[in-house]
Parts: sequence; structure tokens; C-alpha cells
Amino acid sequence: MGHKAVILSSGGLDSTTVLAIAKAEGFVPYTISFDYGQRHRHELEAAKRVSDHFHVAQHLVVPVDLRGIGGSALTADIDVPRDRPMKEMSQGIPPTYVPARNTVFLSLAMGWAEVIGSCDIFIGVNAIDYSGYPDCRPAFISAFEKLACVATKAGVEGHALRIHAPLMEMTKARIIRRGVELGVDYGLTFSCYNPSKDGISCGRCDACRLRLRGFREARVKDPIPYQIPIDWDAIINGEQ
Amino acid sequence: MGHKAVILSSGGLDSTTVLAIAKAEGFVPYTISFDYGQRHRHELEAAKRVSDHFHVAQHLVVPVDLRGIGGSALTADIDVPRDRPMKEMSQGIPPTYVPARNTVFLSLAMGWAEVIGSCDIFIGVNAIDYSGYPDCRPAFISAFEKLACVATKAGVEGHALRIHAPLMEMTKARIIRRGVELGVDYGLTFSCYNPSKDGISCGRCDACRLRLRGFREARVKDPIPYQIPIDWDAIINGEQ
Repeated sequence: MGHKAVILSSGGLDSTTVLAIAKAEGFVPYTISFDYGQRHRHELEAAKRVSDHFHVAQHLVVPVDLRGIGGSALTADIDVPRDRPMKEMSQGIPPTYVPARNTVFLSLAMGWAEVIGSCDIFIGVNAIDYSGYPDCRPAFISAFEKLACVATKAGVEGHALRIHAPLMEMTKARIIRRGVELGVDYGLTFSCYNPSKDGISCGRCDACRLRLRGFREARVKDPIPYQIPIDWDAIINGEQ
Repeated sequence: MGHKAVILSSGGLDSTTVLAIAKAEGFVPYTISFDYGQRHRHELEAAKRVSDHFHVAQHLVVPVDLRGIGGSALTADIDVPRDRPMKEMSQGIPPTYVPARNTVFLSLAMGWAEVIGSCDIFIGVNAIDYSGYPDCRPAFISAFEKLACVATKAGVEGHALRIHAPLMEMTKARIIRRGVELGVDYGLTFSCYNPSKDGISCGRCDACRLRLRGFREARVKDPIPYQIPIDWDAIINGEQ
């Protein structure tokens, strides 16, 4: 029996790939998702589908209401940007940045890791595609590991907590190729910031655009439906 | 107009004294409390009373459900210890320790500070009375400040976040004397881990025993009622 690992799962492409990586590395996966007042519920439904599919030991949903804190297009009444050029997306801090989100999420994961006796947390942060988010960088992960050493009972007793961020330096295309190698079904996942009421991805928000660019560059068909037409045959054949 | 400060408020003796200190230092106070599945609600009611009394700019209650994470007598079905000798209370990590609680709370405070444009967070942690809690020590506060520098937009832009822990090295008696100097009404506050249904403090849990010892040593009458008889006249006259 492998060691237990806590994997932060949003039901998205990145965290699902991370879950597959943790399993492939021999960890017994415990997934944790956050009900943080997202504007849509499709994310949590996807996280449950993914956890069920991977037969995790436990999937915990922690309610933490970030709406009172505000300040983000994902939780407050700020418009989600769409059709932004890649260049603009990669500059500065986007309006979808939720202040302190990853710190809050890692803290909660750290608490659960302590209770279940795990010293390994996996998170799907990525410094390439999300360069504008301060809490998606190697310096953040490293500072959090240092904090965990002094913040927890396990840390005080000498059991360092390791934060695994296996996607940190990977492009979206490489993440997708790694997932495909591991047999990940991306049809279970969900990324869109601004879906239709019945959960069809818009194809135009930053999250959809990054995801679609990844599949395009990997020359792999994204199995989820979009509100915009996409010529997958041309993409797979390298004509787009 | 002073700078804005976020003050973590539990409605207890320590955090209320910290609020008075922040005000005395000229900060405009914003209080934040957490609805984390405490076994009783008296704590949040006290936090509201205290915030109203101090005329804070805003009092935010953030729901964050730590019950799913479990592992503590404060949120799970573990007995709250009572009548423990001081010596035993000061050794090891008590069953009322909530894993990662202060990390989660400071993260949420950090998110709010970022939104309201504050670089100062006040927290009533204390390394003397709560030596058993890993996240109540100077090393924890210092590690969190370092994390904040890389975790936030403000930090990335060069505005360091300062975590003020003015009670860190103070005994409970000294905290009470400082509060009395600042005119704090401790009748508004609440500390008990195990109150009666109508909110009367038990006088026997660790929190009550620490609080009572503080008032006893400070020779000040605690204005809140207890389920056990206490001879305040003898205490104030130094006969107990």
C-alpha cells in the first residue's frame, strides 16, 4: 500500500492530470475540492465525476465562502473577459485572480493531510500558462512548504510536508500529452469560466482559450463540447 | 485617517484586546471572524458584539467549514478536556488544536486585506499560554509573512504584509491589564469551549481555566458569569 496523498481537485484539466500523475507514482489519492462560491457549479460536479472515475480513497468538499472577500470575476460581479489575445492574457494579474485562493486551499489541504496522516499534497499550479497569478509560481510553493514545517503538528515533529506541483514548468500541450499517456479521459473535466446554463463551455474565456490552445498544439481532440465551432479534423491533421 | 488593518476576531479576550491595541495604534479596524463549524455559536455572537462596540469599519464573517477535515475537539466529536492542571495544559498539542486553523484564517484575512487595500493584519496568538499549538509561535508568524510576500498581488508589487501579534510574549494577566488600561469591556467577550445551552461559561475547560487564571493574577474581576462559584472579592484583595 502506497503513501497517502492529498490532491487538490477542481475537476479541470490540470488537477485531473495531477491526480493521474499521483496515482501513477503509487500514492493512495485523497481528493479535496472547494465550494467557494464559484459562479457556476459545473466545476464541483466535474470534480466528483473525476474522483469517482479514479476510485479515490475519499473525496472531500470543503465549503469556504470567498464571496464576502470579493475582488474577483470568479466570485463577484465583475465581467469574465473573453476573446483576449494570448499576449494580453499572459501579462499582469487577470481579473479572475481570487486573492489568496491557493493559500487558502493549500492551508485546508494541509489540515486534512495532518488528520489523515499524509505528508504529500499535489496541486496543479502552472507558472507558464498562469504567469499572472502570484500564487502559481515556484517561489509560492517553496514558501508554503516552509510555512508547513512550522504550522503543523507533523512539521513540528519533524515530518516535512511536500507540496508536489508536477505541472509547474509544463505547457498546456505537454500536460495534455502526459495525461493522454496516462489514459486520462478529458471528457470528464471542465475548465470554462463562463459556461451556458446547461454547462456547455463558452470557448472564449481565458480558461477555454488556454485549454483549446493546449489541445490544438498537442493535436488531440478535446472531447468536451463548446458553444463555438471547432474543426478538430483540421487541427489533428496539423492544418490549423 | 489611519491605515486600514484587518483584525482576526473570535470574540474572545485575546482578539478583543488586540482590536483595542490596533485602534490605539491609529489603525482603521476591519474585523474578520470565521464560521468554521464551532460546536457553539456564542463565539460569533461575541465577535459581533465586540465589533459593534468598537465601531469597526466593517465586520466580515467568512463561512469555512472545517468539520469535514475533523481532528479536533472543537469541531468533531472528541471530548473537550476539563479540570486539567496548568502543567498538563502547557505540554504537547491539546485535543482542541484545529489542524491548520490559523493558517486558514490568516490566508482568508490576507485575501481580504488585499481587496480592501490593507498591509496590516492583527492576530491574538500567544506563545506563552498556547505553547502546545504549533501555529501560535513567532516562527509561524514569520513564515506566514514570508509567504504573503510571494502569495499576493500586493506582495509581488513590493508591499509587504505585516502580521502583528502584539500578545505573542504576554501572559494572560498582562493582556488583561493592558486591555483594562485601554478601556476594554471584557463582559462583551467569550472564551469557553464548553458552555451551557444559554451560553454560561463552564469554568473548567482549558480556555476558561487560562482566562480565570489571568484575571486572578491580574487581580481583576472577570465580568462574565460562570457555572462554578468564584470568590472575586478574595481574588481582588489578593487572598486567593
